Amino acid sequence: MTLDEKYMREALAEAMAAAEEDEVPIGAVLVCHGPGTREDGEVIARGHNMTECLHDPTAHAEMLAITAATSSLGGKYLTDCTLYVTVEPCPMCAGAIAWCQVGRVVYGASDPKRGYTRFSPSLMHPKTEVVSGILADECSSIVTEFFKAKR
Amino acid sequence: MTLDEKYMREALAEAMAAAEEDEVPIGAVLVCHGPGTREDGEVIARGHNMTECLHDPTAHAEMLAITAATSSLGGKYLTDCTLYVTVEPCPMCAGAIAWCQVGRVVYGASDPKRGYTRFSPSLMHPKTEVVSGILADECSSIVTEFFKAKR
Repeated sequence: MTLDEKYMREALAEAMAAAEEDEVPIGAVLVCHGPGTREDGEVIARGHNMTECLHDPTAHAEMLAITAATSSLGGKYLTDCTLYVTVEPCPMCAGAIAWCQVGRVVYGASDPKRGYTRFSPSLMHPKTEVVSGILADECSSIVTEFFKAKR
Repeated sequence: MTLDEKYMREALAEAMAAAEEDEVPIGAVLVCHGPGTREDGEVIARGHNMTECLHDPTAHAEMLAITAATSSLGGKYLTDCTLYVTVEPCPMCAGAIAWCQVGRVVYGASDPKRGYTRFSPSLMHPKTEVVSGILADECSSIVTEFFKAKR
């Protein structure tokens, strides 16, 4: 299991927690590396979609993880961090990721309808490295199953 | 004074409150109309940029106003509302505005560097009416003066 898979599993655990709360199951985990490195680090924040329970359309997994991380670090930048998220960020989340200059973003499943790349890949900060497709099938099927059960 | 100018003045008052707290002076006001109308309504939320004091790069005026409004209304949609904001929303805020389907957005000054139109006008929901340029000079100069004083 690679480091990216390890943390995507943790993001998937967050997604499963969302499903249990009847929220669209998307999860995120923020890992802080040492300054300037990409080595294994520490989970500094976790989040899952809470739009229903908070009645807040901005309460996406990434937004909650970013707000928790910047508040606890007491700074606005996350340049030495990797954000793991089960589904491709939407433009709102990509914009938030850009504001705090997250060093690296790893997402699982693509989102052809609402994903930021459909609108403009430059929504991400130019210095942010983006990796996609990690455990994509699992990240995608948890969402598909959720909506199938709703019908 | 038109209705749009009246509420832009209230958004400007929020921007001034931000300046007093040493935050980049941008303000927002959300007005709820009657269902299906664009007549004068009620201010249901106000917000100003609080990124510094909250150590949170997502704490833009629009985000705070939207979160306050949806939480108090107990719903995720703001279709019968007009959002007044002194400066053109960034992609993050445009994405949030799209998620809650704000019926109408009125902004003052354009932001050629960080405004959402630089990236993609389709970041807004297709049903959202957008008006720009209301009290643009005042909305712009309060920001310019803020940064001039910083130097």
